[in-house]
Amino acid sequence: MEFKVNSKELEKLLTKIIPAVPSRTPMPILENFLFEIKDGALTIYATDLEISLKSSLNIVAEENKNIVVPAKLLYEVVRSLSETTIHFEITDNGKLNLKTDSGEYTLSYLDADEYPDIPSFPGSDTEKEDINELTISGTELRYAFERAAFAMSKEEMRPAMMGMLFEFGEEGLRFVATDGHRLVNLLKEKVKLDAPAQFIVPERAVSVSLKLFDEKDVKLYLSKTHISFMLNDIELITRLIGQKYPDYSSVIPLENEFKMKVKTKELHSIIKRMMLFSTSNTRRVKFSISENKLEVSAEDLDLGTSGKEVLEVEYSGDAIDIGFNSQYVNDVLTHCGSEEDLIFKLHSPTKAVIIEPEKQKDNQELMMLLMPVRLNN
Amino acid sequence: MEFKVNSKELEKLLTKIIPAVPSRTPMPILENFLFEIKDGALTIYATDLEISLKSSLNIVAEENKNIVVPAKLLYEVVRSLSETTIHFEITDNGKLNLKTDSGEYTLSYLDADEYPDIPSFPGSDTEKEDINELTISGTELRYAFERAAFAMSKEEMRPAMMGMLFEFGEEGLRFVATDGHRLVNLLKEKVKLDAPAQFIVPERAVSVSLKLFDEKDVKLYLSKTHISFMLNDIELITRLIGQKYPDYSSVIPLENEFKMKVKTKELHSIIKRMMLFSTSNTRRVKFSISENKLEVSAEDLDLGTSGKEVLEVEYSGDAIDIGFNSQYVNDVLTHCGSEEDLIFKLHSPTKAVIIEPEKQKDNQELMMLLMPVRLNN
Repeated sequence: MEFKVNSKELEKLLTKIIPAVPSRTPMPILENFLFEIKDGALTIYATDLEISLKSSLNIVAEENKNIVVPAKLLYEVVRSLSETTIHFEITDNGKLNLKTDSGEYTLSYLDADEYPDIPSFPGSDTEKEDINELTISGTELRYAFERAAFAMSKEEMRPAMMGMLFEFGEEGLRFVATDGHRLVNLLKEKVKLDAPAQFIVPERAVSVSLKLFDEKDVKLYLSKTHISFMLNDIELITRLIGQKYPDYSSVIPLENEFKMKVKTKELHSIIKRMMLFSTSNTRRVKFSISENKLEVSAEDLDLGTSGKEVLEVEYSGDAIDIGFNSQYVNDVLTHCGSEEDLIFKLHSPTKAVIIEPEKQKDNQELMMLLMPVRLNN
Repeated sequence: MEFKVNSKELEKLLTKIIPAVPSRTPMPILENFLFEIKDGALTIYATDLEISLKSSLNIVAEENKNIVVPAKLLYEVVRSLSETTIHFEITDNGKLNLKTDSGEYTLSYLDADEYPDIPSFPGSDTEKEDINELTISGTELRYAFERAAFAMSKEEMRPAMMGMLFEFGEEGLRFVATDGHRLVNLLKEKVKLDAPAQFIVPERAVSVSLKLFDEKDVKLYLSKTHISFMLNDIELITRLIGQKYPDYSSVIPLENEFKMKVKTKELHSIIKRMMLFSTSNTRRVKFSISENKLEVSAEDLDLGTSGKEVLEVEYSGDAIDIGFNSQYVNDVLTHCGSEEDLIFKLHSPTKAVIIEPEKQKDNQELMMLLMPVRLNN
């Protein structure tokens, strides 16, 4: 059977789908795209068994057929072509031929039976469970993911924390990520479901979907086991992490009475320099805060190197010396780079510090939390 | 003792010097810069024992002193500062303090005695040997190195071929590089020494100096053992490879009577696609050349994939099928990307092919040579 597609249209589609193809996998079949040709549409799937991506093109084809095609090779070939029409021919002896005006390329395909099943939303026939549905703008999802993703845990010991929590409650939708050392908590007010609910979206789904979001609306379908992000022309479905998310609210201090206002960019520039001087295993940086003054310092006793810088801030609380992991401070500042001023809310050298933008966006509350580290002296 | 420098001036200088600092070395002292403060100049050196770089800044200092400073740390600190004045202070107890308006950084320094000697040009007192001197424009040196560097061998078995040959003769200066599979031979006419001479410049000197050349003139000093590239504000000195360069001219065929003219960009685009289809161990690509037509094809029998494309060329010689390593063809085309048309001079499927730009630049002759690989059928 035959069909044809424009090379640049196909390239655009494959570029969006290929992030779901695993780069290393014990199941070689996953290194392929699934091509589903059905009723005048070519739908292309990729999955790593956790997340799946799919997208469709309209084509003219006389039959329906499913085949499995080497993903990387097909992508590289299509990507390297100038704009042209590609004539696809699927032969009965397992060959997929691509013909252009000046060239001809042959790939081998496999039968689609070997490809794993991909869950479909909404309302697959097999399980008529409750599915929640809501719409959020791609810009807002991107904002939330960009701010919170870095704080997800990489430790396999606590699987729940290796994802991002979507928590629907009275106030709205909270995105929460934490690894126990730092925490991001972003509330989107007015985004609600009928009842409170928690969903944990795995790290890979967060990072892949970040590449897909644009300013357009995203439809979310949520079941107990899966979530689907439906964009204009592409759908990402991911398994949820089926664990209980830890009670993060208990670590958020309620009475951090001392407030320090700092210029984000200035502090970030200092932290980057202090990272050069902080001991490589502790990465400790010291904040010495006094009236309207922040001194940031770091040292590496083994190398005999040290650095300190002074920054003007707004502060009228008690003088405090508090230590942080400089890498974690840097992460927070990197992901708040667009905020002009930040407020650090402090209480004592051993209590978590809350960091918030001085100006919150409408209908939104962004809060970051950083655990201090012990100072030697 | 103290002195001060502008942070951006120092950054510019360190950026040029740091490529000579080895990233992995059994001699940790080489991970440092040598600072030589002498008669109102700060000269900074770096070396990996093969190549050395040095450059100077004028400073105001009351004493002379040599110290050895951690290269990477100093570079990162200086680079991360906005434009400011850095006050350097060298203390007697082994500390180097850097002070700016808002910060203070302390590094440890070592005595300069432990740093290896760096050869100096011209006319060091120690060896009054014959030194040749000549001037070439940075643009021309860059052109030559960019065209030829890729063909140097990576095989330690034949050390001479791991460098680029500078061959001074009757016709001018030839730059030659080869790894036995491909060869580049670039003649700059009119560039001469008093007598014929050969110098082999090691690969690392070629790649580091490529980063330094601009449109300004470069002074070359050549001794039997070293070569120095003296640019406006920086000097690169390298050991020469003290081996005999193989007789490359014997492999250059003199009578390749069939000439094929191809568009460089078109052929390059095809080769990139064929690389996707050529078997990963042989990387073989087949050129089937007939009247005004070039068919390029590749296949991977294990994967059952193949590709072929047809290109219009100018050719009136015998029909020839000839095989190449597609990676090597790609290298040649990458480094001739600025040439509109190339001439392939051929004789038979087993004889080396000569590739030349259709239009040679004035006073220059560029020739590339590619060994064919055996075709199975």
